[in-house]
Amino acid sequence: MAVTQTQLDEIAAVRESQASTRRPVSPELEEILYTLIPVLDHGFVRVIDYMGDDGAIVQAARVSYGKGTRQARDDASLIRYLMRHHHTTPLEMCEIKYHVKLPIFVARQWIRHRTANVNEYSARYSILDREYYIPEPEHLGAQATTNRQGRADILHGEEAERVLSLLREDSERCYDHYQEMLNEDADGNTLDADRSGLARELGRMNLTLNTYTQWYWKIDLNNLLHFLSLRADAHAQYEIRVYADVMLDTVKRWVPAVHEAFLDYRLGGAALSASGLEVVRRMINDKPVDQEASGLSKREWRELMVALGRPG
Amino acid sequence: MAVTQTQLDEIAAVRESQASTRRPVSPELEEILYTLIPVLDHGFVRVIDYMGDDGAIVQAARVSYGKGTRQARDDASLIRYLMRHHHTTPLEMCEIKYHVKLPIFVARQWIRHRTANVNEYSARYSILDREYYIPEPEHLGAQATTNRQGRADILHGEEAERVLSLLREDSERCYDHYQEMLNEDADGNTLDADRSGLARELGRMNLTLNTYTQWYWKIDLNNLLHFLSLRADAHAQYEIRVYADVMLDTVKRWVPAVHEAFLDYRLGGAALSASGLEVVRRMINDKPVDQEASGLSKREWRELMVALGRPG
Amino acid sequence: MAVTQTQLDEIAAVRESQASTRRPVSPELEEILYTLIPVLDHGFVRVIDYMGDDGAIVQAARVSYGKGTRQARDDASLIRYLMRHHHTTPLEMCEIKYHVKLPIFVARQWIRHRTANVNEYSARYSILDREYYIPEPEHLGAQATTNRQGRADILHGEEAERVLSLLREDSERCYDHYQEMLNEDADGNTLDADRSGLARELGRMNLTLNTYTQWYWKIDLNNLLHFLSLRADAHAQYEIRVYADVMLDTVKRWVPAVHEAFLDYRLGGAALSASGLEVVRRMINDKPVDQEASGLSKREWRELMVALGRPG
Amino acid sequence: MAVTQTQLDEIAAVRESQASTRRPVSPELEEILYTLIPVLDHGFVRVIDYMGDDGAIVQAARVSYGKGTRQARDDASLIRYLMRHHHTTPLEMCEIKYHVKLPIFVARQWIRHRTANVNEYSARYSILDREYYIPEPEHLGAQATTNRQGRADILHGEEAERVLSLLREDSERCYDHYQEMLNEDADGNTLDADRSGLARELGRMNLTLNTYTQWYWKIDLNNLLHFLSLRADAHAQYEIRVYADVMLDTVKRWVPAVHEAFLDYRLGGAALSASGLEVVRRMINDKPVDQEASGLSKREWRELMVALGRPG
Repeated sequence: MAVTQTQLDEIAAVRESQASTRRPVSPELEEILYTLIPVLDHGFVRVIDYMGDDGAIVQAARVSYGKGTRQARDDASLIRYLMRHHHTTPLEMCEIKYHVKLPIFVARQWIRHRTANVNEYSARYSILDREYYIPEPEHLGAQATTNRQGRADILHGEEAERVLSLLREDSERCYDHYQEMLNEDADGNTLDADRSGLARELGRMNLTLNTYTQWYWKIDLNNLLHFLSLRADAHAQYEIRVYADVMLDTVKRWVPAVHEAFLDYRLGGAALSASGLEVVRRMINDKPVDQEASGLSKREWRELMVALGRPG
Repeated sequence: MAVTQTQLDEIAAVRESQASTRRPVSPELEEILYTLIPVLDHGFVRVIDYMGDDGAIVQAARVSYGKGTRQARDDASLIRYLMRHHHTTPLEMCEIKYHVKLPIFVARQWIRHRTANVNEYSARYSILDREYYIPEPEHLGAQATTNRQGRADILHGEEAERVLSLLREDSERCYDHYQEMLNEDADGNTLDADRSGLARELGRMNLTLNTYTQWYWKIDLNNLLHFLSLRADAHAQYEIRVYADVMLDTVKRWVPAVHEAFLDYRLGGAALSASGLEVVRRMINDKPVDQEASGLSKREWRELMVALGRPG
Repeated sequence: MAVTQTQLDEIAAVRESQASTRRPVSPELEEILYTLIPVLDHGFVRVIDYMGDDGAIVQAARVSYGKGTRQARDDASLIRYLMRHHHTTPLEMCEIKYHVKLPIFVARQWIRHRTANVNEYSARYSILDREYYIPEPEHLGAQATTNRQGRADILHGEEAERVLSLLREDSERCYDHYQEMLNEDADGNTLDADRSGLARELGRMNLTLNTYTQWYWKIDLNNLLHFLSLRADAHAQYEIRVYADVMLDTVKRWVPAVHEAFLDYRLGGAALSASGLEVVRRMINDKPVDQEASGLSKREWRELMVALGRPG
Repeated sequence: MAVTQTQLDEIAAVRESQASTRRPVSPELEEILYTLIPVLDHGFVRVIDYMGDDGAIVQAARVSYGKGTRQARDDASLIRYLMRHHHTTPLEMCEIKYHVKLPIFVARQWIRHRTANVNEYSARYSILDREYYIPEPEHLGAQATTNRQGRADILHGEEAERVLSLLREDSERCYDHYQEMLNEDADGNTLDADRSGLARELGRMNLTLNTYTQWYWKIDLNNLLHFLSLRADAHAQYEIRVYADVMLDTVKRWVPAVHEAFLDYRLGGAALSASGLEVVRRMINDKPVDQEASGLSKREWRELMVALGRPG
């Protein structure tokens, strides 16, 4: 991760500033505030700011004058109730802000979640760093044939080597030419005084999609959980899932009662269709069931059996 | 304002809790955190929580590793630039949460701003207080005739007295009957053990629209400024404008540089149409202008002359 | 339902206009376009416009140059897939616009769904009609004691009569006084030439919350289904559920394949928590289960047993 | 523009389907419905569907039972009023859906507007076409030095040729290697039966940012005008402005009265700050003004003088 010493110093400096506040404070999250949590080869997640804690959710649900409750146990119980009944507006009363460094192709998936506030590092104004994502060999999956959206076995031997070297060389060459076209190095120094240099807003188009970008990304807790339920899921692409996993840990530090309810009701649960429920009812009553009679497609049937602990 | 002693004690208690944080702190806003700022006869605004300050906007605009800048003067200058060019995404990086008590007819206007998070006190679960808005005599405007949406002169004498007594009596009677139908007093005690009591979700329909409700309302700074530009405006209904005015003061405490730029570029500025600009250009060049030739309607012409300091 | 003859004539006239279009047309929905579907005692739902059909969803999912597919069967199958995997963005490609007349206390629940476009009839500009909701005797539920948000048995005899007469008399009296204060009848004619009349924006505060309002409400199909999953649910208040039921019928006419998938995967399905899934797995394997050992609360346990067809 | 004959046939077929509807129809827009409007070297804009017309805005503003008005002149006048006073909710009652093909670096700017519905062609599922944007020589701007976000003079001679050949060669090579890694041609045929082929979700990262993508993009008229006011503006990057210009033409065909009001009040108008207004007032009254005394920065002053027709 090519973070400069200047940047590390800035982080250390901002971490040292301490002030007194009347607002709710989440000590476990304060502990890691501003620090870099590495993700992939050059990426990171940093928590920059947050608003609220478990208690703030209870306080909002009760439209309270003071704190919501006195007992942590009551808070957890109310939070479970809210999560179960999809009374999600109190969760919107908490907010978190991240600084994230991520490959552009991951950023393009990520930004599809429209309910967040975003400030991205501008390649119209500024020069991007020479940083691009190269997968670890163990994540170099072949195209899945059963599922058009996914990976199967890992590539090996010559094919894997060839892929890695193509990725490296193309990224490197495209970045070299980017600098040449701009006529600037990464610090903005002119390379050749006799040339004008292409506008940055144009030069960026020569970069490959594994180039890293970065942004400030702010979201309320309810929408964050929705994001995590999709992106910390096994069906999500590995390169975004690793970010979601890291963020899920920050949620645990920030609002532990919400984190626990989220694991139980969302990540660890399952949504059954009317037809799926009927299959379950028959199984409980020891009546015969089979995929064809169930009305479920083969894939639905397989997914249901996995959820019920009866894989093939 | 019928805030109970218990509620005042809760506020005092929550104000006493102080903790250390690494987050940006806005000392002027901390000073009034949680306190009740009275509005209208029974309403209030309380700041419950906030995220970010002037510096956080600069930090996000620069996608910075540490603080945004070192000099307050640079911050203010960048903030003016952002405001002037409608680069509003860095403003979205600040967030504020209010607890507001307000008449239902005001709440219905307010909620039309959809970009906020809201938790309203539920009249399905709970019993509303016996609190309703009665205007001060000096705000008892007659219907404007030139402008269908607005007030003209103040009602006087018998007509004013009649209006005030109707408002008072109808509110009082409707609330009495609300309690009678629910068969409960404001604390939830049964009134008559021989009756069942109507469901709260039904009983509430007998209340008048000046009954007070309350909510937690959370919004980012950019959307708050949009709300204030509409609701702190002279065309806004008085009963919502007084809330906007109080909130504008909290913005000044919270993000003083943003407040100043907002007054200059939005509240104190004016948007001229292409036709309006043409009139201005002619006036500057001492060419004759008149409403009919300008293509502006009479009302547009009048508004333009007011903006130019030349009211009829 | 106090719709005037003029209004009925307007509806008839707009229904007669037919034009040719290249856009997708939903014939079953065209049939009822603009017509009044009565709801409650004075309310209604009217479909005013729509965009897209089942095919448009497929077309968007495929980012197609022409229509999405050729076979209705393929469309339905893809739509089921999208619904099952929460790939909801193609559903957002369809849009519908309703004209709804509804009591204000229902409108206040409804507007909490922020993802729609709304134009409400303005009581700042205009005078509201003398129309208020009075429940049918069979919907006059008592307050539930087990569930603070809900109704239990129906009120009977004297208590029911008393409630109904209070609701009627208070609504009537408040409306009378509203007109008196405005010094206008419902058509805007001055009542007493010697008085000024209170501004409409103030007078409205004397109306009760069962007064009818109306609005144009436009929403995309994905957000509409979310609204319906909450409001056509058995836990929703009866007075909003009847609107949701009527709108669900319009969805069936508009996008029949989506309607079918929605009933199977959402309305008729159930979301099981991790703990709930574990109970189901034990039941399938004929292992003993009980509420206490399950980690579920009594209420969660009861709800799970109902979903599994084993109510108490 | 590499649109295949199959795609052109699909477009022709969908254009032929005509049906009768009771909905408002916009004949000028129907004329071009589904057709390809070329933008840049391989991009396009297609209008796929729309909802509403000028009349529908009036109808919603009045919460009407039939059409809004009878006279086109009244409609235009009300629409001007709504635009002037920022009563924008009636504009939200119209909706339009586009199919757009655009370079990825343009798509990344575009998607920052979060108030639209989007379905993008998926490079996880599918293979992107061999199409990338190469600027025309007359758009090959050098980096501006006065304004970090913009272009200055055009590059010439050898420097221009070098830039164009780098862009072409790098795009071509990266696409070749993309196919080699996937082990598939653009139609999905396997290239080498002895290799597995990298997963598509990974392979895409080797493409350059000028590669074309495509999406369905749906937005309401109010948010579309906001998008156009920013992107059809002279400060917008040329490569997105050309899309905005084409879309502005479709707005003219669709809702001509809105288009006219938009040009007058937004695109052709100017927002003056309080300080700027003060300068104008002094100029009208023939009082001396200068930049330093005005409180405006040099850049603000210059922009104001341009708006007033008095450039340096």
